[in-house]
Amino acid sequence: MRVLGVDPGLTRCGIGVVEGVPGRPPALVDVGVIRTPADAAIGLRLVLLERGIEEWLDRAQPEAVAVERVFSQHNVRTVMGTAQASAVAITCAARRGLPVALHTPSEVKAAITGSGRADKAQVAAMVVRVLRLDAAPKPADASDALALAVCHVWRGAAQQRLASALAAHR
Amino acid sequence: MRVLGVDPGLTRCGIGVVEGVPGRPPALVDVGVIRTPADAAIGLRLVLLERGIEEWLDRAQPEAVAVERVFSQHNVRTVMGTAQASAVAITCAARRGLPVALHTPSEVKAAITGSGRADKAQVAAMVVRVLRLDAAPKPADASDALALAVCHVWRGAAQQRLASALAAHR
Repeated sequence: MRVLGVDPGLTRCGIGVVEGVPGRPPALVDVGVIRTPADAAIGLRLVLLERGIEEWLDRAQPEAVAVERVFSQHNVRTVMGTAQASAVAITCAARRGLPVALHTPSEVKAAITGSGRADKAQVAAMVVRVLRLDAAPKPADASDALALAVCHVWRGAAQQRLASALAAHR
Repeated sequence: MRVLGVDPGLTRCGIGVVEGVPGRPPALVDVGVIRTPADAAIGLRLVLLERGIEEWLDRAQPEAVAVERVFSQHNVRTVMGTAQASAVAITCAARRGLPVALHTPSEVKAAITGSGRADKAQVAAMVVRVLRLDAAPKPADASDALALAVCHVWRGAAQQRLASALAAHR
């Protein structure tokens, strides 16, 4: 399964694409970041982000899209931008009929490091290890997007096992 | 100037279209609400909302779009949905090259009633009076979208006067 992960943001939107099957370490396909100018009008920023995400979807041809679920943060202004960026990513994916999954930051941390309270450095270190990279992709948003995609491959696998077990039980 | 106002929301997104020129009471063009099913996946809800807004833009052919600026509210879940719905509305407008303005709820209240702290009933009453309607459009989201559009016509006029005065001073 090829998954495109999105760490949503207006200034930097991380994109990470991985490919994997249940029970095996996934492989890196591509990683990067979409940037929009902080001094541009919100309308232009969202349109630029939309174009960037469309280009990524065209190029990566994922079978599923995983987006970080936005929660309240300290900075209300930031969380609004994050929510708006996530809406663009979700809409682009859903428009193509791609399944969209939302994972919380702690779900991603738990899937990658075993602890929902892991810090950013620990998540980045595990992204490097799981995907057998030389170093964590920069900026952190790119690395976080990969963690999200890995999380989705693994959680998807777990959810499939659960569904199969339930089906077998019935 | 014809303005399409958007009171963003996933369950109910209010749309109000008014036409007006500076210094005269604006006229109602059209009003309504876009609904998406609360039990649908977020991706489907955003795509349905996008389609609805595109249809409104096609039909109303506004020269500008005014969207309520989202602030933190008590319910974090609600505010995320509102931010995501606003992103869809802003993106649809900006994609067409339409100017997009954001107004805060208190700016709208102040423009319509003279007080930024007016309650919902007072805003609805002033929408009825300003647009010479028989009753406030239901649901409240539709009426709020009209208030936003009226606010934009009037604030736009005030901003134009200010710009003209500054230009004359130079």
